[in-house]
Order: sequence, then structure tokens, then C-alpha cells
Amino acid sequence: MYINCDMAESYGHFTIGDDHNVIPLVDACNIACGFHGGDSLTIRNTIKLAVSAKKLIGAHPSYPDLAGFGRNMHLSKDDLYASMMYQIGAVKSITEALGGKLHHVKPHGALYNYSVVDTMTAVTIAQVIYDIDPNLIVITQLGSQLAIAASELGHQVHGEVFADRRYDASGRLASREVENAIIHNPEDVFEHYKHLKNGHALTVYGNLIPMHGHTVCLHGDHPEALRSLQLIKSYGS
Amino acid sequence: MYINCDMAESYGHFTIGDDHNVIPLVDACNIACGFHGGDSLTIRNTIKLAVSAKKLIGAHPSYPDLAGFGRNMHLSKDDLYASMMYQIGAVKSITEALGGKLHHVKPHGALYNYSVVDTMTAVTIAQVIYDIDPNLIVITQLGSQLAIAASELGHQVHGEVFADRRYDASGRLASREVENAIIHNPEDVFEHYKHLKNGHALTVYGNLIPMHGHTVCLHGDHPEALRSLQLIKSYGS
Amino acid sequence: MYINCDMAESYGHFTIGDDHNVIPLVDACNIACGFHGGDSLTIRNTIKLAVSAKKLIGAHPSYPDLAGFGRNMHLSKDDLYASMMYQIGAVKSITEALGGKLHHVKPHGALYNYSVVDTMTAVTIAQVIYDIDPNLIVITQLGSQLAIAASELGHQVHGEVFADRRYDASGRLASREVENAIIHNPEDVFEHYKHLKNGHALTVYGNLIPMHGHTVCLHGDHPEALRSLQLIKSYGS
Amino acid sequence: MYINCDMAESYGHFTIGDDHNVIPLVDACNIACGFHGGDSLTIRNTIKLAVSAKKLIGAHPSYPDLAGFGRNMHLSKDDLYASMMYQIGAVKSITEALGGKLHHVKPHGALYNYSVVDTMTAVTIAQVIYDIDPNLIVITQLGSQLAIAASELGHQVHGEVFADRRYDASGRLASREVENAIIHNPEDVFEHYKHLKNGHALTVYGNLIPMHGHTVCLHGDHPEALRSLQLIKSYGS
Repeated sequence: MYINCDMAESYGHFTIGDDHNVIPLVDACNIACGFHGGDSLTIRNTIKLAVSAKKLIGAHPSYPDLAGFGRNMHLSKDDLYASMMYQIGAVKSITEALGGKLHHVKPHGALYNYSVVDTMTAVTIAQVIYDIDPNLIVITQLGSQLAIAASELGHQVHGEVFADRRYDASGRLASREVENAIIHNPEDVFEHYKHLKNGHALTVYGNLIPMHGHTVCLHGDHPEALRSLQLIKSYGS
Repeated sequence: MYINCDMAESYGHFTIGDDHNVIPLVDACNIACGFHGGDSLTIRNTIKLAVSAKKLIGAHPSYPDLAGFGRNMHLSKDDLYASMMYQIGAVKSITEALGGKLHHVKPHGALYNYSVVDTMTAVTIAQVIYDIDPNLIVITQLGSQLAIAASELGHQVHGEVFADRRYDASGRLASREVENAIIHNPEDVFEHYKHLKNGHALTVYGNLIPMHGHTVCLHGDHPEALRSLQLIKSYGS
Repeated sequence: MYINCDMAESYGHFTIGDDHNVIPLVDACNIACGFHGGDSLTIRNTIKLAVSAKKLIGAHPSYPDLAGFGRNMHLSKDDLYASMMYQIGAVKSITEALGGKLHHVKPHGALYNYSVVDTMTAVTIAQVIYDIDPNLIVITQLGSQLAIAASELGHQVHGEVFADRRYDASGRLASREVENAIIHNPEDVFEHYKHLKNGHALTVYGNLIPMHGHTVCLHGDHPEALRSLQLIKSYGS
Repeated sequence: MYINCDMAESYGHFTIGDDHNVIPLVDACNIACGFHGGDSLTIRNTIKLAVSAKKLIGAHPSYPDLAGFGRNMHLSKDDLYASMMYQIGAVKSITEALGGKLHHVKPHGALYNYSVVDTMTAVTIAQVIYDIDPNLIVITQLGSQLAIAASELGHQVHGEVFADRRYDASGRLASREVENAIIHNPEDVFEHYKHLKNGHALTVYGNLIPMHGHTVCLHGDHPEALRSLQLIKSYGS
């Protein structure tokens, strides 16, 4: 179960995350594409670091909303398709120009969540990834609309679980508004990670439920993320 | 001497040019990359038309300035390099996803002009084009700093002349502020085109001077551009 | 029944509408605030023309979406409130600096439509207008959520009808997707205007229904809008 | 010699500075206007805090460049004028809607520096401030082109000195690239502040030169800025 982390989300003087220190501790880097974060130089520098460190590189496209970090927007199917093609295309080209190869695509934020439940969104995203390269892996939650749509096109889908988030009784991510939904303490994140590796996830009620994934996400834009990653890394992924 | 035209510069509801009708009349399409114009859907639709019509496709990157259509900005060498890589990369990937192949790069507006005279800008642009693909053709004015820098890296450079612009006595494009600098009348554009094909350009003083180019640019965002292109097309390029 | 028209929607080199020629033909100018259109210079120039022509001046705020001309976005109540305060505030200050006085506020596009039906959106917009100036008039459809919320705060509400749009049987604007929803022909727009002045609106089925408004909107971004406005103007508002 | 600090520069999820804790420690708040930083909600929240704390409130307008925090751009005189009017106007209206009153204007970053040396830029900024309100105070370096232009229009000019920056031998701010130009250590900033209060500034060579100002700037976007401000505050301004 490899570790993925969202990065390259800084924008000019606006800094988010600590990519330089996070990259050595993760397996896969989800690269912001400039629409919710990620200026050109940040994207290029982060991909360069990831290529040097031989990490898996993915595109992390979003709704076009810098001021809101990718809030939900009403895009037409054509606008969504073209926006994805532009964003994924930019990151793919830069990765290749720097000697790497694009490995996967994982939607960002509100687009990630909407592609879990909305068929049109899921089908559109799956199609554009397919049209760019049928060998790209799609990272999403198992059972999501996007997982279904991507599988139907023949894409490999990697199910994602979250080390720093708790689930509801039915196995869905608990909303950030719910008490206990977010795990802050690095030791607790580490404990959850070990459960996930063993096929279980913690619910907000404190019990364990079965949960399987190919890759585990850890958010890198919190001060304690580095500590969580160090604990996990020392344990061995 | 093939005809190139800037396009895909519309942005959402903001329409510039008449790409649908211009494409059949030109040989090479310079595609805006989203930074001075060109939303994702416009870029994708224009490239799709250009691929279908088997036209040469180029990237047309700019300073990042939508409100000013690419005004001159003070970018660091690193920012300029990364911005070019992002913009050219996006258009390259979209072109390939749609079954085409990127043929050339031509900077836009203030960046075009500055790369003619500024060595740092020219060297940076040449380097990033080289790092993306050494087979890309660079379109610029012969003798420009960009022409020199690209040639030194081994790039093929295509000298550009302008059918709808007059030159000064020394063979440089006359500034748009100079009287007679812009040729508006389609018949006059057509006459100038024939002179350029024969190795001569018109000056603002009305005389002809020697002028050689591989490709001639015609701006498509004027109402009479279509008529000029039809005259040229009927004459045979 | 005075005539209002949306304007100042051009953005840099991207031109929408024909404000210079439209202003003399209308009574009230709804000024784009920079978020769906309207660069600073366009806003300032248009307000200057409107002040000189002694027209009523209003702010025309939008969701922050330049690429989509103000598509629906999921903004929090606080974000919406602050965004409205910024946009209306900018246009109010510029109007006053140029010797005018802000007369009204009319939301734009998707925000207009959503404030007709969504209570949170309506209450938030009404509140921010009130907090800026309780004497501002609110332009919206009579009976809308925004009309209700603004009235409750004591605002004067001006009901708006549309000369270039037909209605459904229940008196709501027919969606632009419905056949006959949009009236293109200037003579037909003029006929509809006369019906509206007499307290009736045309439905997409061709019959007349009762319809009352204080102000009639005519969209100025169509080539034939000027002709419609000239017919109406010559008739006398 | 009152203390001013740039703030409201955060943008959505992108956080810069620590306005909540800085405001109680300063006398004057320079509010970003949305063009180099400052989303609508940040601007509104920061002004609200400043009004509650009865601080002096100023507008801090910039070149329109979010990705580069206001890099130098080639704006026409008209574009610069209108951009200033929009930015200052927005902050002025919001301040008034929240029960405050705009006290001053201080340009940001590259625009600040360019208005020190460039007459066209200085005259344009002075004129727009005058056209908005002749009672607004202009904060700039004494002797700058902006100081001259604003004085000629009758504006009160407040000379600005910098506690966390050293000067060259001729009394100009040393460029950030120069060794010792920036003072990082809070105790050193505090020492410099005391020198400035006594009419002297430190040069990069370590000696003191005469230097007079009405207001001292301290940048709040560094982790140690709070400590510097606490030392100064405890000393008494």
C-alpha cells in the first residue's frame, strides 16, 4: 500500500505544504496543475524533485478556482473535459520534459468528491484520461462513480484510503464537519495507517471496519504531516 | 512561404477572431496557451479543427496577463522558463491527445517583441523549447536574438514576415504607432503578400526593400482578415 | 418603465457589447464589477460615460468566474457576502469619484437566477446591499427570494421584466434552452416591449399573460440590440 | 512615528502573515486590495478587525499580478489610473461599510518602488488618490517622485522608514539582494527602530546616517515579525 501526497500547491509567494521535505517520505506525488494552486515554477520544481527521487508522479487537476482552492462549480461536460485535458496535459508534458513519466491522475478537492457520486463528472474525467493515455492509473475511492467509469474503459484503478481521516459506519469518508473526522495527532495517524495496512479503517465511533485500498493518502499541508510521514516511513511501507 | 495565423485567443464568452473560418485559409495555426487568451475549451476545439484540417500546429505562449493580452512583465529567468514549459506543454499534450503533433513555437505579443531584442529572454525561450523537443521549429524574425539563440541550440528557425504590417528603412517592423504601419485594406495586404513572396517588403515610406522569410503572418482578429486570406489563398501560396 | 442594460463587460482586449452607443438609448446602466467581466479601465470609462449622460448607475456583481462569465459556484455565506461587498464597493467608489451616485444593484447571470430561488443567497445579497447603503434600489424579478429579502430590510425593490425573452405559462422566464425563449428580431422585441409597458408579457406559446415591472432589461451584447433600443427609444419610454 | 504594516495579503487557502495578532501591535494597517493578494473575505475580515481596534486604515494597491505578488508590469497611464481607482475604491467602500474611514494610500511592492523613481507612475498615482479624496494621506519615501507629485496636488505626505531594512550610504533602501539589507533578528530590528525614532538609520556598512520619517514600516509576513513588534510596542511608540 503505497503512500500518496498532494503537492505543488504553492502559488507564487503563497506557500502551502513542504514539498521538499515531504517528497523523500512518500511514494507518489500528486502534482497540482495550476487551477486550484501551483504556479508554473512550483509545478516544475516539484516535478523535478520527484523525478530525481524516482517517485511516482500523478496529475491532480481541479475545478478552475484559485481563490477557493477548487470549489464546486457548474461546468458543462465540454468545459470539464477540456479543462481536464489542459491541466493533465500540462503536467504530463512537464514531467516528460524533465525525464519522467506520468503515472496516475487523481482529481482534487471538490472535484474528487463530486466524481465519487456524480456519473456525468465521473464519465467525463474517465474519458479524458483515457483519451490522453489509456495506461494512466486512476486514483479514487473504490466503488466510486469514477472507479466504475474508469474500469469500464479498461483503466487500472487504485483504491485510495486516508490515514488522517476517519470513516462513517458504511465505509464512506466522514465529512470534515463531523467530530473526530480528522485525525491530527501523528501517533494516531500512524496507528490508523497500521490498521489500513491490515485491511481495516477507523470510524468516527471508534470501531474498526473492513477497508481495502492500493494507496494511502496523507495530506502534507499540515505542520504535523512530516512527523506522521516519518513514523510511517520508519515502520516500512 | 506558408501562412501562419494566431488563434484560439477567445476566452469563455469573450470572443476574438474567427478560427472556424480562418483555419481552412491558412497553413499554420499558432495556438494561444491560456495565459493571454485561450480558455481550455477554445484551445481544445481549435486544435481539433486544425488537426482535422491537417494544418501545422504551433504553441503561442505569452506573458501571464489576461487583462492586458500579454503585456510586458518583469519575470525572473526561472519564472519565464517554467511559464513557457507549462504553456507549451499544455498545448503539446492536447495536440497529441487529439492525434496531432506539435510543429512549432512562436511567442506572443510583448514576449515576441522582447525576445527579438533581449538576450536573456531569447536564450531562456530557446532553452525551454529545446528541453521540450529539439525538433520543434522556432518562428521569429530572422536576425532576432531568439533566432540566434535557437540556432545555437540546433533548432530550425523559420523567419517570419508580416503581410499586414509595413517595415522601417532598416528592415524592422514599424511600430503600430507609426503612420502607415498597419495595412488595413485587403487588396493592399494582398499586394504586400505578393511582394513578400518575391523577396521584398514595403516600408512606411512606400518603397520596397529586400526581405526574406519562410512564413508570413496574417492577423485573424480583424473583420477584414478573412477577405485578405481569401485573396491570398486564391492566388496560391 | 425605465430601460436597464448590462454593460462594462469587456475585459482588456476582449470586447463585449457596444457601451458607447448603447448608453444614450437606455435609462439605467448595470456596471460589471470585474468578476465575470469588466477590467478596471472599462469599468471606469463606462461609468464616466454614464455619469456624463446622467444615466442611473448600478452595480452588477457576479460569482467570481471570468472564464465562464459568472457560472454557479458553491460559495460559503461569508465568501458570498464579502465578494458582493468588494464588487459593489469598487463600483460605488468609482462612481462617486467620477461625480455620480450609485442608484441600484442587480446581480449578474447565474447569481441573478440563483438569488431568485435560493433563500440563503437572497438573504446574503440583501444584507450586504443594506450594509453598504440602505437607500440602494434592488433590481430583481418581483416575487423572487431576493425581492422578499430586500423588502424585509426596507429596501426599495424594482421588478424587472425582459423585452428580449419570453415567459412560461406561470410567469417565469423561460429557460434559454426552450424554443422561442429568446426574441432575436428587433421588431419582435419592440412589440414585446409595448406589451410589457401595457402590463403583459408574451409566453413561449404565443399568448399574453399579466406581467408588471418597474424596469425592462434589454441585453446589449447582441448585434441587433442597438436596433431594438432605437425602436424603443423612438417610441418613448 | 507610528507603525504601519502591510496586511490582508492572504488569498483563499493561501495564508500570508498573521493579521489577527499583528493588528493590536501596530498603528496603521495597509490593506491589500485583491490584485497582489487579498481575497474579498480576507480584506473584509481584516478591515473589520482594524476598525474594531480603532487603527488607521490604508489601501495598499498593486500591479495586477497575483502569481508574482505584484511584479513590475508595463501598464499604460490610463490602465494604471483605472486600476488604482478600482483597488483603492474597493477598500474605501468596504472600510466605510464597516464603520471606518480610509486614512491613507501606500503602493505595494514593485509599484511602490517604481513610484519612487518614475514620474509618470508617481503623477498618475497621485492624481487618482486626489480624484478619490484630496484628504487621503500618501505614504511613500520622502523625496520620492510620488512624494513630490502628491505634495504638488496638496496631499499630506507621510515619509516612511523601514525598521527591518538597512539603507545605502546615500539614504536609499538597500536592495534586498545586498548583504545585510534585511534585518532578521527581532532585537536588531528593535535597535534599528530606536535609531529611526531618533532620526537615524543604519546603513549596510554599519554606520548611522540622518533619516527622518513620519511612519515606520515593519513587514508582518515573517515568523519573527510578532516578536519585533512586541519589543517595539513595549518600548512605546
